[in-house]
Amino acid sequence: MSEVESETSIRALGEGRYAARLDATWNIGSNPNGGYALLPALRAMLDLAAHPDPLSVTAHFLRPASGDHDAEVTARVVRAGRSTTYATATIAQAGTPRLIAHAVLGDLTAPAPGAAPDPGLTVDPPDLPPPERCVGRRQLGQGVDLPILDRLEVRIRPELATPDASHPAIVEGWLRLTDGAPPDARWLPLFADAFPPALLTRMGPVGWVPTIELTVHVRRRPAPGWLLARFECDDVEGGRMIESGTLWDSAGAVVARSRQLGLVLGR
Amino acid sequence: MSEVESETSIRALGEGRYAARLDATWNIGSNPNGGYALLPALRAMLDLAAHPDPLSVTAHFLRPASGDHDAEVTARVVRAGRSTTYATATIAQAGTPRLIAHAVLGDLTAPAPGAAPDPGLTVDPPDLPPPERCVGRRQLGQGVDLPILDRLEVRIRPELATPDASHPAIVEGWLRLTDGAPPDARWLPLFADAFPPALLTRMGPVGWVPTIELTVHVRRRPAPGWLLARFECDDVEGGRMIESGTLWDSAGAVVARSRQLGLVLGR
Repeated sequence: MSEVESETSIRALGEGRYAARLDATWNIGSNPNGGYALLPALRAMLDLAAHPDPLSVTAHFLRPASGDHDAEVTARVVRAGRSTTYATATIAQAGTPRLIAHAVLGDLTAPAPGAAPDPGLTVDPPDLPPPERCVGRRQLGQGVDLPILDRLEVRIRPELATPDASHPAIVEGWLRLTDGAPPDARWLPLFADAFPPALLTRMGPVGWVPTIELTVHVRRRPAPGWLLARFECDDVEGGRMIESGTLWDSAGAVVARSRQLGLVLGR
Repeated sequence: MSEVESETSIRALGEGRYAARLDATWNIGSNPNGGYALLPALRAMLDLAAHPDPLSVTAHFLRPASGDHDAEVTARVVRAGRSTTYATATIAQAGTPRLIAHAVLGDLTAPAPGAAPDPGLTVDPPDLPPPERCVGRRQLGQGVDLPILDRLEVRIRPELATPDASHPAIVEGWLRLTDGAPPDARWLPLFADAFPPALLTRMGPVGWVPTIELTVHVRRRPAPGWLLARFECDDVEGGRMIESGTLWDSAGAVVARSRQLGLVLGR
């Protein structure tokens, strides 16, 4: 079993309740990465649903979670439809809710019932140098410890690795699991939250950028191999930023789109 | 009181329950526009919160709602924080849930506590011909009745009004309330769902495009006057499309960002 599979596992307690544990290896600074903390909630929703894949996952991050602490997941199906299931799940630690997630689940390998002919629209992947010519995320110096890089290998386009106030706030690069496990549609909400903040390439080390709300649309089951990603922050107002991203698989197909509302804090 | 204010009003019944009524004037085809049906849920969440503005609103559209029918809203605060409130609300008609909404509420006029200095990132509005030189939405021929245009004046950039399979799927234009009421931050989730589908400019009449999930980030309280908008669909897979949009106020400031997962159905 891969590390991400075992370290996001849940144990059913009945009536939509599950026991889980968040591992500190997935921390950003002293708290678990939001995309990681979300996965036990997603797995609980998938466990209750007749559909195998996430189509849309929204998480509201209520309070920081704690690594190396037990967690309880409470999940509920809101509507079980023929082609989609709507569900919600909460992760609590020490009796306090840490995040609440809302998902639409379906089958990525089946077209939507009654789908129109494909209009041929897609987003092309960036033309990146190969991973071995990119820069490890740790070398970028975000201004926060990154234990998560023991689990995820993240490599950034070299031109973006030196912050410059004249840069647009864009980050592009590669990602894979360090244990060699192939990417899986279920892990895409984590992968969509695993790159350095796009603002880093413009502002320099930005520390921890707390996510308020994250929505990930999963588009296809990824082919094995590296994922490519591009994230852009184009809109900051009163310290609240919008960051949008796209992930592609090794075949060049779009596998996820993401958008988050996050906070850019002074240091 | 403006039409949108009175036709999305709620009456408190106690314990987070509210009575509402959806008006058929806001229909797209034979069902209320999703952004309109969402507003009583948003208003119930705002009623329970100490914060005046929506920051992030996600809606899951479970089943079509019905115009000219009573509705019941059930709302709950998930977390009441100092600078944000997280809340959820469900709209039911005839005892059946129609949509569930999840919001982060705050104060758009107050920077986030501890906000970093502004990095100066924003999105410029499109350079549109004035509204009187644009084309009324009704003239585009979406392939569905649009009673909602009695409430909202929507004018589209003329070059986009003639569908062409070589076009990118982009729609740009102007929007205002027909009764002359100024735009309000609370109505932005409706305004972000009120333009013709961006796919129309490429595919021609597409009929009703059911939204599965819509997330709107409200960025600023809008200045009075017309709103400008730009929506793009760049990603369709198995009939499931991603459409992303931005709205600006008459002063050229970004007031909302939107993204939805919708269905493109054969006709």
